[in-house]
Amino acid sequence: MALVFSATPIGRLRTPWKTTSDGPRNGRRGDQPLCTVELDPAFIPGLKDLDGYTHLILLYWLNQAGIPEMQFTPPNDTEPRGMFATRTPRRPNPIGLSVVKFEGFATPGVLNVRYLDCVDGTPLLDIKPYLPSTDAEPDASMGFQKRSR
Amino acid sequence: MALVFSATPIGRLRTPWKTTSDGPRNGRRGDQPLCTVELDPAFIPGLKDLDGYTHLILLYWLNQAGIPEMQFTPPNDTEPRGMFATRTPRRPNPIGLSVVKFEGFATPGVLNVRYLDCVDGTPLLDIKPYLPSTDAEPDASMGFQKRSR
Repeated sequence: MALVFSATPIGRLRTPWKTTSDGPRNGRRGDQPLCTVELDPAFIPGLKDLDGYTHLILLYWLNQAGIPEMQFTPPNDTEPRGMFATRTPRRPNPIGLSVVKFEGFATPGVLNVRYLDCVDGTPLLDIKPYLPSTDAEPDASMGFQKRSR
Repeated sequence: MALVFSATPIGRLRTPWKTTSDGPRNGRRGDQPLCTVELDPAFIPGLKDLDGYTHLILLYWLNQAGIPEMQFTPPNDTEPRGMFATRTPRRPNPIGLSVVKFEGFATPGVLNVRYLDCVDGTPLLDIKPYLPSTDAEPDASMGFQKRSR
């Protein structure tokens, strides 16, 4: 397709990890340190009523991801997998997605969250409320992936 | 921020709804008809191993969304809510997200899915496997929204 859409950062994610090799394999592993979402001040009015939610979905642009690899062998795996069957950052549109625990506001434009795994400074694209009625599928099958955090 | 990222469609979503007013309020309501994901053939090798998953996360560009409104009063509500506390398509980066039930392949590049609510032809940005270990929070609070589909 020739079409291209322009995604513009609306803020950035602050985490303890300076490089992609520093971070955990996913945000539920290890220490789960407190991270923050720094929203550009122009968008603060859009945060009204967010405080009633316990969990959020964050979308962000993985600007340090390498070029996509259609198939690759994940760590601790023995055979190549299709990229769409994994959460690798190396995908055609490197949009990262994390379901995070929301622990309130540090300041009106700064959100305290846990379960991020991306590098410090990652550009934020969207904040969505997590709705268990449409987003929670606790019995979903994880395919070839073992259920371990 | 001055930065802009280029998101390129990798396929399109086929649904029964021709206009935004035709569709359901969300994909868990009503009939939940069979929809399809048409992936551009170049990306078919990236689908290897997807068949073991029961649910997927689809990201798409809501190219028919209006301009963002920082606050608005949702249908069946009585007061204005912040856009980030809702799933309105009218957001700074109109990226739609649906957790869908995956019902196998119609052809090697066409996936059968349920629970979509977007209009026919919506540009696809990403296919991710749904992982209950990081994505399912069945006990999350829905904030001001009532739990009803």
